[in-house]
Amino acid sequence: MDPLSRETPRFAIRARDGEARSGRLSTPHGVLETPAFFPVATFGAVRGLAPDELARVGVQGVLANTYHLHLRPGEELIAAHGGLHRFVGWDGPMLTDSGGFQVFSLDAFCRRSEAGVEFKSPLDGRAVFLSPERAIEIQQRLGADLVVVLDEFEEISRDAPPDLARTRASVERTLRWAERGRAVHRRADQLLFGIIQGGGSLELRAESAARTAELGFAAFAIGGLGVGESPEERARLLGAALEPLPPAAPRYLMGLGLPEDLVAAVARGVDLFDCVVPTRHGRHGSVFTSRGRLNLRNARHRDDRLPLDPDCVCPVCARWTRAYLRHLLNAGDALAARLLSLHNLAYYMNLLRELREAIEAGELAAYRARWSARYAEEGAGDSSSRSAVHSPA
Amino acid sequence: MDPLSRETPRFAIRARDGEARSGRLSTPHGVLETPAFFPVATFGAVRGLAPDELARVGVQGVLANTYHLHLRPGEELIAAHGGLHRFVGWDGPMLTDSGGFQVFSLDAFCRRSEAGVEFKSPLDGRAVFLSPERAIEIQQRLGADLVVVLDEFEEISRDAPPDLARTRASVERTLRWAERGRAVHRRADQLLFGIIQGGGSLELRAESAARTAELGFAAFAIGGLGVGESPEERARLLGAALEPLPPAAPRYLMGLGLPEDLVAAVARGVDLFDCVVPTRHGRHGSVFTSRGRLNLRNARHRDDRLPLDPDCVCPVCARWTRAYLRHLLNAGDALAARLLSLHNLAYYMNLLRELREAIEAGELAAYRARWSARYAEEGAGDSSSRSAVHSPA
Repeated sequence: MDPLSRETPRFAIRARDGEARSGRLSTPHGVLETPAFFPVATFGAVRGLAPDELARVGVQGVLANTYHLHLRPGEELIAAHGGLHRFVGWDGPMLTDSGGFQVFSLDAFCRRSEAGVEFKSPLDGRAVFLSPERAIEIQQRLGADLVVVLDEFEEISRDAPPDLARTRASVERTLRWAERGRAVHRRADQLLFGIIQGGGSLELRAESAARTAELGFAAFAIGGLGVGESPEERARLLGAALEPLPPAAPRYLMGLGLPEDLVAAVARGVDLFDCVVPTRHGRHGSVFTSRGRLNLRNARHRDDRLPLDPDCVCPVCARWTRAYLRHLLNAGDALAARLLSLHNLAYYMNLLRELREAIEAGELAAYRARWSARYAEEGAGDSSSRSAVHSPA
Repeated sequence: MDPLSRETPRFAIRARDGEARSGRLSTPHGVLETPAFFPVATFGAVRGLAPDELARVGVQGVLANTYHLHLRPGEELIAAHGGLHRFVGWDGPMLTDSGGFQVFSLDAFCRRSEAGVEFKSPLDGRAVFLSPERAIEIQQRLGADLVVVLDEFEEISRDAPPDLARTRASVERTLRWAERGRAVHRRADQLLFGIIQGGGSLELRAESAARTAELGFAAFAIGGLGVGESPEERARLLGAALEPLPPAAPRYLMGLGLPEDLVAAVARGVDLFDCVVPTRHGRHGSVFTSRGRLNLRNARHRDDRLPLDPDCVCPVCARWTRAYLRHLLNAGDALAARLLSLHNLAYYMNLLRELREAIEAGELAAYRARWSARYAEEGAGDSSSRSAVHSPA
């Protein structure tokens, strides 16, 4: 397909409320209402879920992992199928990561250099080399709407003060890699995100953001958060990273997180999220509800005739009780993982919609206060003994 | 709910072609067009699949396993939820087995006696006792539309001649158990099947059928086939079991089978089937197509842009290529098992529909010949190298 024949992604802010914003990000595969949350489709699919049911609960876009798709089945095969959207059967917006995070976090023996990073394929042991240019080439072949540069990240230690020299070296390398990646990016139908690093240092976060903006990127991702820092520290680091950015550009917080993380980050002005939390938690029986998280494996749900969340209108809550879903989960039937993931995504999509509406109404602060009070209601991460009182419609 | 307020199941034969028949079996949860095939919903769900998508590919009814549901979550809990249909969210016809087959085949240490069979729960090791009366009581609590008596079965050995004394003892016991089960069955909205045994003996099969019919059952299941005998032997044993039965009563062949088994048994006059084959094969990458079975893990499908079956109109074949589904299967994404199971069920439902139409047109013999020739086309159980030539719509 001819990249020039396709629309160039555009972002427009519609409303502001404090630092928060709601907007529309147009892509060749449809418009995202922001703030938006993308579930993770590691191998091209959100584990166990089909595209039509994602759309039915309000999912606007998905993130696919470049690392996994490069190793198997490979971007050549996907390109020959007409690109990622056609290969996986998802017609909406898609985002790919660079693959770097997986290399750095999964492969303890990867060899970093200025040229890039070499690692061993866990599938067949062959050496794979990922450079800033290669990460862009692969993502151009895959053909997602939103793509990111390769970055190098340093974990934030909870215990030790930040190693400023290492973190600065990593920020500098990420900036050089961003420039190299941007230089080879050709597809005008893809929005390319620069990535802000800076570890646990407020100064380096701010510098990374300012200098990534100077490189001329039109969209910004914040990396290296959600890896050990406290929520308070994260808020400060996020603020430092967002402040220097051009206000009209979309901001994407990578790999986060829990509902409370999303609510806090939206209030700081983040427009886009991706995370495995709703689906991974769902597979393990951890369910998000308007009154907090509940563990469906808990014996108190054995005869619980409520839906997962009595306030939810998703297809799962419309049909099944906690007791049945707990039974399927305990029996190991794959339908449980699927339905709990789907409900959790419905919960996330509803939360994001409410956040957008609150911003547009200029009532985000009041919404946050109400949401937090309600979400804390169930106490220690599980539902109360009211469970068995009434029956789902 | 009041059993008397619900419709009593009725069976009506609409057309005959040789020994084959097509008909309609009315149940309180809808009408089955027969011959019909029920996928197996072990824990209440057909593994990984939701009721709405089963209905969409033409599934008319499902079989749930009494053994598994009795052990977990227990029939009390299911009855308190309003019965099996409401618990699992399937509004169509349901069938439960007696649980006996699982006890005899899964638990090598079960203790058989005239009273019933005792076994250890694999969940918690407690002793569980299943009697002919208990099997009916459990199934009445579960509330399926079609239920069966507890039987005792003897495996057919491929190598040794049938042990006639043991098989006769088993037939006699099954008859006594059938009588005891029938005596406690109260729900007029459930159709109770007697079960024909007789192992590998034509005489005992015929006697078991004749004497089960004499007991006054209105529906008949044939058990203990598909456990090691050759297809030719199975055809003879099936014929011996069917011949003495009242022609107007529905006949259910338990636990079979492959498409070729179904085609052969329909021609002999079987009306109802259940089997794990389409879903279990699907989970392992074995795909049924109009040209035979293919193994999707085969490397030849790596870049295969055909749908699973170019002749199939199911939602899976409408959207995805073999290459993508193979990729998901190799990656271990649960969506692969789900979509391959769904396609295989669509294949089965289409086959049964074509068999019904052939019977109604009086053209079953011609249909069988065409079907067999086509099904053998792909040769050694896999598709040809034409795979990569054309692309799915």
